[in-house]
Amino acid sequence: MTARFEFKLAATDGRARTGAISTPRGQIRTPAFMPVGTAATVKAMLPESVAATGADILLGNTYHLMLRPTAERIAALGGLHKFMNWPGPILTDSGGFQVMSLADLRKLTEEGVAFRSHIDGSRHMLTPERSIEIQALLGSDIVMCFDECPALPATDKAVAESMELSMRWARRSKEAFGERPGHALFGIQQGGVTRELRGASADKLVEIGFDGYAIGGLAVGEGQEAMFGVLDYAPDMLPEGKPRYLMGVGKPDDIVGAVARGVDMMDCVLPSRSGRTGQAWTRRGQVNIKNARHADDPRPLDEDCTCPACRSYSRAYLHHVFRAQEMISGMLLTWHNLHYYQQLMAEMRAAIARGDFGAWQAQFHAQRAEGDIEPL
Amino acid sequence: MTARFEFKLAATDGRARTGAISTPRGQIRTPAFMPVGTAATVKAMLPESVAATGADILLGNTYHLMLRPTAERIAALGGLHKFMNWPGPILTDSGGFQVMSLADLRKLTEEGVAFRSHIDGSRHMLTPERSIEIQALLGSDIVMCFDECPALPATDKAVAESMELSMRWARRSKEAFGERPGHALFGIQQGGVTRELRGASADKLVEIGFDGYAIGGLAVGEGQEAMFGVLDYAPDMLPEGKPRYLMGVGKPDDIVGAVARGVDMMDCVLPSRSGRTGQAWTRRGQVNIKNARHADDPRPLDEDCTCPACRSYSRAYLHHVFRAQEMISGMLLTWHNLHYYQQLMAEMRAAIARGDFGAWQAQFHAQRAEGDIEPL
Ligand SMILES: [Zn+2]
Ligand SMILES: [Zn+2]
Repeated sequence: MTARFEFKLAATDGRARTGAISTPRGQIRTPAFMPVGTAATVKAMLPESVAATGADILLGNTYHLMLRPTAERIAALGGLHKFMNWPGPILTDSGGFQVMSLADLRKLTEEGVAFRSHIDGSRHMLTPERSIEIQALLGSDIVMCFDECPALPATDKAVAESMELSMRWARRSKEAFGERPGHALFGIQQGGVTRELRGASADKLVEIGFDGYAIGGLAVGEGQEAMFGVLDYAPDMLPEGKPRYLMGVGKPDDIVGAVARGVDMMDCVLPSRSGRTGQAWTRRGQVNIKNARHADDPRPLDEDCTCPACRSYSRAYLHHVFRAQEMISGMLLTWHNLHYYQQLMAEMRAAIARGDFGAWQAQFHAQRAEGDIEPL
Repeated sequence: MTARFEFKLAATDGRARTGAISTPRGQIRTPAFMPVGTAATVKAMLPESVAATGADILLGNTYHLMLRPTAERIAALGGLHKFMNWPGPILTDSGGFQVMSLADLRKLTEEGVAFRSHIDGSRHMLTPERSIEIQALLGSDIVMCFDECPALPATDKAVAESMELSMRWARRSKEAFGERPGHALFGIQQGGVTRELRGASADKLVEIGFDGYAIGGLAVGEGQEAMFGVLDYAPDMLPEGKPRYLMGVGKPDDIVGAVARGVDMMDCVLPSRSGRTGQAWTRRGQVNIKNARHADDPRPLDEDCTCPACRSYSRAYLHHVFRAQEMISGMLLTWHNLHYYQQLMAEMRAAIARGDFGAWQAQFHAQRAEGDIEPL
């Protein structure tokens, strides 16, 4: 524990890095995967179970929480950590991405975004200042700048103008944040898939000065090749001594490729969302538990996995409870998926520390290429 | 542990009894409440959490399991205990009640009930012999006779004829069950709300001879007064040295009234079903967590309850996650409700053992009469 927010690199292997972020609420081992707790819960999980998978930090969504139950209510109840029974670090997004993808009747101006709630149609306004205020009310440990992310494909001009707006908002976010010892503010690099714009965005953010830097505007449908193309240069534009956070990523092979390119933090709804739709992620790739091949299969999902779903249940059981639409289906598969994701992060941290991340990556891809175990 | 099925009374207080059933899979402390695991899961709970609430035994449903995933499949996978990861005792119903309430195109004959599955329309036949076979395939520790329960209101003649049919089926069930050391077969008393029919049914069952006796045909809409009217005499018609099981009961005050009248075992979907619809049962009565009065309430559901929902969350949180339709709402409220029910059983067992069950009942009713805590 520490009173300050602090990032220390412990080892690098090629461009891959491992280290730890210290916060007053505990340490975040990097590379870190952050499960998403949209509405003050990681869906289908108790927070102590999320911690048991190895997660050090959760992500909370400003857009959802400001609408319901509201940031003011959470603040009055003692903050988001107490509200949702998660004592560890929490990162909150700024609402910028979700307001553009979920809200109704959006109107974007220099000031911010006016919109109507997708829940009850009520009118709201998000600005850099209001986003930072909400994140402070929630008690977030890592606060994100309010930014704008253009829908792709977009013209170079549109991407450039959007990036410039986000940089002006980044400056306003920094001013609104002020000094909050033990809490961190992260800037968000934009610029689409254009190297020059990514560079200009990084320069602007560094000039303003942040505790960490996110890579935004990726994982929005551009595909893995385009994303890796940007990650081939974008992380290195950001300060080496600060954490680099790739927002909204991703599938296991996206995550491994991002870590290989110098990313320290990621978040994604995929492992929990997949868990509720009968999709399991394993070291041998994806398993669709709905498939009839599992109906009589007494074997666990992954015999090497130590999660409760794999330790105590057969594929036949997981298949049955999914078909019967029982809640335990989502509970067990989400647990497995989050466990697998954290296992992946732990293995990468160890491999980078040992200096054989290249060999580890080769094994990761070889296991996936084998595919799922043969049907009985 | 024991190799035999055995019931020992430890103490009585008035007509109330406490004791224990020994089975090869563990002890069942009585009076016992059995959570319902319809489709091989107690909805919204992991089995280790059900055990943590204090449950010694679960109930499984023959009708649901024979249709999906099928008893033959569960047997091939090693039985219901292994399938659903519940090592303790399991009681299975016979399917008789559910086939009459859930299946399509039912046809009742002396032989049994022909019907179509409510899931996929497939044709099936349940007879005493088939019901006992299914329960053996599942590996049930306590097997129930296949019986017929007429929908009320019914004429005396219809109730009498139905009871006579159930008694003929009870004899066929006994013959089909044979000798299965360590496993028990329970007969089911029928006869509606007619004392003479209840007496005749009990005599017939005792003549056949069972390891325990259920009181069937109650909790089907007759109301608490009529049910208690039957319980004023029906349990005493059954052998003192065998467990008495009241099927499908009930609300907390139904349960307390049944125990006071000599019942040893009960089951009901109510605590888990209520948990999924935002209803909590507490020592102060029922709490509707949906109600807006809870939106800002930092207090736990019940400050004296030690379940995870009460220990770690506010009413405001429980209200929020119910409104947001998050799975954790059903998970936490089901846990609380099952915990409360088991707490109730433990308190009754202790009070009967101490010989002050009357005083305990008075306090139980007094606390409920107070109602929920005042809004803030
Ligand atoms: Zn697993
Ligand atoms: Zn509780």
